[in-house]
Amino acid sequence: MLTTDICIVGAGPVGLFAVFEAGLLKMRCHVIDALPVVGGQLSEIYPKKPIYDIPGFPEVLAGDLVKNLEKQIAPFHPTFTLGERVEHLHKQEDGSFIVETSEGTHVACKVVVIAGGLGSFEPRKPAIDNLETFEGKGVNYMVRDPEHFRSKKVVIAGGGDSALDWAIYLAGIAEDLTLVHRGTSFRGAPESAQKVVSMAEEGHLKLLLKSNVTDVHGNGKLNAVTVLVDNETPYEIETDYFIPLFGLVPKLGPIDNWGLELDKSAIVVNTVDYSTNIPGVYAIGDINTYPGKLKLILCGFHEAALMAQSAYNIVYPDKKFVLKYTTVNGIQEL
Amino acid sequence: MLTTDICIVGAGPVGLFAVFEAGLLKMRCHVIDALPVVGGQLSEIYPKKPIYDIPGFPEVLAGDLVKNLEKQIAPFHPTFTLGERVEHLHKQEDGSFIVETSEGTHVACKVVVIAGGLGSFEPRKPAIDNLETFEGKGVNYMVRDPEHFRSKKVVIAGGGDSALDWAIYLAGIAEDLTLVHRGTSFRGAPESAQKVVSMAEEGHLKLLLKSNVTDVHGNGKLNAVTVLVDNETPYEIETDYFIPLFGLVPKLGPIDNWGLELDKSAIVVNTVDYSTNIPGVYAIGDINTYPGKLKLILCGFHEAALMAQSAYNIVYPDKKFVLKYTTVNGIQEL
Ligand SMILES: Cc1cc2nc3c(=O)[nH]c(=O)nc-3n(C[C@H](O)[C@H](O)[C@H](O)COP(=O)(O)OP(=O)(O)OC[C@H]3O[C@@H](n4cnc5c(N)ncnc54)[C@H](O)[C@@H]3O)c2cc1C
Ligand SMILES: Cc1cc2nc3c(=O)[nH]c(=O)nc-3n(C[C@H](O)[C@H](O)[C@H](O)COP(=O)(O)OP(=O)(O)OC[C@H]3O[C@@H](n4cnc5c(N)ncnc54)[C@H](O)[C@@H]3O)c2cc1C
Repeated sequence: MLTTDICIVGAGPVGLFAVFEAGLLKMRCHVIDALPVVGGQLSEIYPKKPIYDIPGFPEVLAGDLVKNLEKQIAPFHPTFTLGERVEHLHKQEDGSFIVETSEGTHVACKVVVIAGGLGSFEPRKPAIDNLETFEGKGVNYMVRDPEHFRSKKVVIAGGGDSALDWAIYLAGIAEDLTLVHRGTSFRGAPESAQKVVSMAEEGHLKLLLKSNVTDVHGNGKLNAVTVLVDNETPYEIETDYFIPLFGLVPKLGPIDNWGLELDKSAIVVNTVDYSTNIPGVYAIGDINTYPGKLKLILCGFHEAALMAQSAYNIVYPDKKFVLKYTTVNGIQEL
Repeated sequence: MLTTDICIVGAGPVGLFAVFEAGLLKMRCHVIDALPVVGGQLSEIYPKKPIYDIPGFPEVLAGDLVKNLEKQIAPFHPTFTLGERVEHLHKQEDGSFIVETSEGTHVACKVVVIAGGLGSFEPRKPAIDNLETFEGKGVNYMVRDPEHFRSKKVVIAGGGDSALDWAIYLAGIAEDLTLVHRGTSFRGAPESAQKVVSMAEEGHLKLLLKSNVTDVHGNGKLNAVTVLVDNETPYEIETDYFIPLFGLVPKLGPIDNWGLELDKSAIVVNTVDYSTNIPGVYAIGDINTYPGKLKLILCGFHEAALMAQSAYNIVYPDKKFVLKYTTVNGIQEL
C-alpha cells in the first residue's frame, strides 16, 4: 500500500501544479492517471499546438507547458501511477482515505484532490458484438509494454498516429503484423503513413485498406478476427492479439458514484477552497463547477493554490497556515 | 479626454494581465499607474529576484515576468498614463465613468478595474517641517524628466539605488550636484556606490556623508537647504532643487473615499466576477479580499479572467459571452 499526504486523481496541468502548491506547504503527493503519460488534454489532444493565454507566456506549446510543470514540481518528488484508472474511494474511520485503481493499486492518504478534467480518457471501442468478452484475453486498447507482443501475431486497427506508430514499432517485434484501416488515406502524420506503406511493400507488415474488423473469435482466448475488405466477402485472419486504436474519449466514470454533488457531470465546489461536499475531498480544474467557472488552465492553477492552503489544515491540524512568498523563502525539497 | 472600454487602475502584473483577458474579448484598455514604470511591486520592490510559483516557470526574475506580460498584451495595444495617481471616480448618468488623475488627466470608460495592489506607491518623505510647501517649487520626490535639471543646482538625499543612480546621471547635466547621505555605507549596488565615491574624488559631484538635510528655505521657490554634517554646526547650501529619494511606500489613498466596501483597507469583492459593491467597478489582485484570498500573482491572473467575462456584459450588452480557447481561435489584434 502506497502512503502519502495527498492523492491527486489526474495528471493534467492542474493536477501537476497542485503538486507544486502542496509541496510549498510540505505536503507529499501521489498522482494517478488513466493515461500512460502526464499532461491530460495537453498531451492527449494538442501537444504540438500553441496556447496564448498562460500568463507570462506570449505563446507556449502545450507539450512544453507540461514539461515546464514537470520541472517545476520535481523538487517535491511526487510519485506517479500511470495507465490506471481511479475507481473507488474508501473512507476510513479516522477521516483518511484509501483510493483504489482499476489495477488494484491502493493509496492511503489524508486528502483526495480530483483534478480529473473531462474525466478519464477511455479508448474509443469499435462496435463489434462480442469484443468485450475478449478484453484482456487478446483484445487490448492500449500498448503498455511492447515486449508483450514479441513473436506473436498481431492485428492493429485504426488510421491515426497511434495506429501508425505502433504498427511500425510492433512490426519489428511481432511474428506477424497486420494493419487494418477503413479508408485509403491516413489521419496520422504523413511521414508515418509513408513509412507504413513502404514497410508493406517490403513485406514487413500487411496493410489492409478500405477494410474493417467486423468480428472476433476464440475459445476463452482470441485466435482470429473477421475482416471485411472493400465490401467483398469477409474472411478470417488468425491472430493472438487485436489492438483497436481509434483514439480516446473522456468519461467521468467511476467518480460518478462517490456521492459527490454533481451539476451536469461537473463536481460542485465551494470557491473558498474548492472543497466538495465530502470533507477532505477537493475538485480543481476542468472537472469542477461554481458560479463564474471558466474551463481554463490558468483558473485551475488558482484553484490549486487555494485548495492547498485548506488541505494544509487537514494534513497538519496542529499548525497554522502562513503565506510565504517563494521569492523570499525559496523552494525547499521534499 | 481619453476614451476607452476599460480603465485599469494599476499597472502591476495583475493590471497588465487584465489587458490581455479584456483584449481576448475585444475590449480596449487604458492603464494608469502612479509609478513611472509598469510592473507594480515586481518592478519597484524586487525586479532582479526570482519568483518560483508562477505556473510553468520553474524560476523567473520578477522583471522578466513583467517584460513577458508586456509582450503578451502588445497585440491589444493598451494605452498608458504613467506617473499619475488616480484620484477621483465620477459616475456618469448613463452608468459609465470618468476617472481623473492627480495631474488632471480624464479617462472616460464603461468599466473601471482597480488593480491597485497595496495601493499607489508614494515617496517616503523625510521629516522636514515646511517640506510640503515647496513641493513642485523646487522639491521633487521623483525624477521624471532629467532635462528639467540641466544647468541647475541640485541636492539629492538618500543612500539607495535611486539616490545613487540619479546622482551619477544628474552630475553630468546639473551645474552643481550634492548627494547627502546619513550613513557612510550605501544600501544601493556596490558598483554605483564606488562610482559615486570616485566621481566625488574627481570633483564631479559633492558627497556629504553622515549628513542630513534638516531644513528647506526660499521665498515662494526653493533656494537653499540646511545640512547638518555629523552633528557639527548646521550650514546652508544654495540650490534650485532638492530631491529626497528615500524609497516608496504604498498607500490606498484616494480610492478610500469612493464608497467601496472595504475590509482592513482591502476592497471586498464577489468571487463570481470580482465585482465590488459599485456596479461596473471591479477589484483584482492584491487590493481585493474575499474568503480564502491569497495575495499571490497567480490568483490575480484568475481574477482577471473572471472579471473580463463579466465586464464583457457591460461593454457589449447585446452580445453573449462565449468562451473560446486561444489555441483554437488564436489572438486577434485590437
Ligand atoms: C483543443 C483544445 C484547446 C484548448 N485551448 C486552451 C487554451 O488555449 N487555454 C486554456 O486555458 N485552456 C485550453 N483548453 C482547455 C484546457 O486543456 C483544460 O482547461 C485543461 O486541460 C484542464 O486541465 P485539468 O488538469 O483540469 O484536466 P485535464 O487536462 O483534462 O486532465 C485530467 C486528467 O485526469 C485523468 N483522469 C480523469 N479521471 C480519472 C480517473 N478516474 N482515474 C485516473 N485518471 C483520471 C485524465 O486521464 C486526464 O489525464 C483547450 C482544450 C482543448 C481540447
Ligand atoms: C518581496 C516580495 C516578494 C514576493 N514574492 C512573491 C512570490 O514569490 N509569488 C507571488 O505570487 N507573489 C509574490 N509577492 C506578491 C506579489 O508581488 C503581489 O501579489 C503582486 O505584485 C500583486 O500584483 P498587483 O498587480 O495586484 O499589484 P501591485 O504589484 O502592487 O501593483 C499595483 C500598482 O497599482 C498602482 N496604484 C495603486 N493605486 C493607484 C492609484 N490610485 N493611482 C495610480 N496607480 C495606483 C501602484 O503604483 C502599483 O504599481 C511578493 C511581494 C514582495 C513584496
